[in-house]
Amino acid sequence: MSTSLPPQIAEKLKFNGGLIPAIAQDAKSHEVLMMAWMNEAALAQTLTTGQATYWSRSRNEIWVKGATSGHTQKVISIALDCDGDTLLLQVEQIGAACHTGERTCFHQPLPLKAQA
Amino acid sequence: MSTSLPPQIAEKLKFNGGLIPAIAQDAKSHEVLMMAWMNEAALAQTLTTGQATYWSRSRNEIWVKGATSGHTQKVISIALDCDGDTLLLQVEQIGAACHTGERTCFHQPLPLKAQA
Repeated sequence: MSTSLPPQIAEKLKFNGGLIPAIAQDAKSHEVLMMAWMNEAALAQTLTTGQATYWSRSRNEIWVKGATSGHTQKVISIALDCDGDTLLLQVEQIGAACHTGERTCFHQPLPLKAQA
Repeated sequence: MSTSLPPQIAEKLKFNGGLIPAIAQDAKSHEVLMMAWMNEAALAQTLTTGQATYWSRSRNEIWVKGATSGHTQKVISIALDCDGDTLLLQVEQIGAACHTGERTCFHQPLPLKAQA
């Protein structure tokens, strides 16, 4: 398994503290499912395997999404943003993206017009 | 203009180094437009004004999206993710979200199956 990126890709990317945020969007429903982090090895593994693979900041290890839950993400495409510091993955999500069992991780609405 | 959050909102949020990533999604087309950062004051201003307001890490200042370009984002709704460390905004985007003139910032595809 390659843990480094081709130079022509690596030179476009701005890792911050070795990490880059990666947004996963459902390729069919277009729901934003989650945001997680990748290091170079996680992105290299994602590109070579086509399975979304992140860096767990809490466990300090490579994390193949769904490796234990079965809720994997098959990557359809990846795009880098204009300044090279954020990734957007289009994925086929098996089951729930969120560890709570919710379809997406973004399930807590915040009230607009809230006053302190 | 309030620069702090109501306690019942603040207690749900995990800022990292004073910042939280905020993903902006087009409420109609469902395109993911950009990811930027908010500090507490930027989020408080977003919630009270309904206009997406970020923290510019390069300029070290509050940044009302579109204040100079006219490409504002009217916020339709905001959701917090399961672990309280990422925001998702549904917005009405006026004009281009990206400073390059592209509709979204995510316009550089990365090749899958890339080998180093």
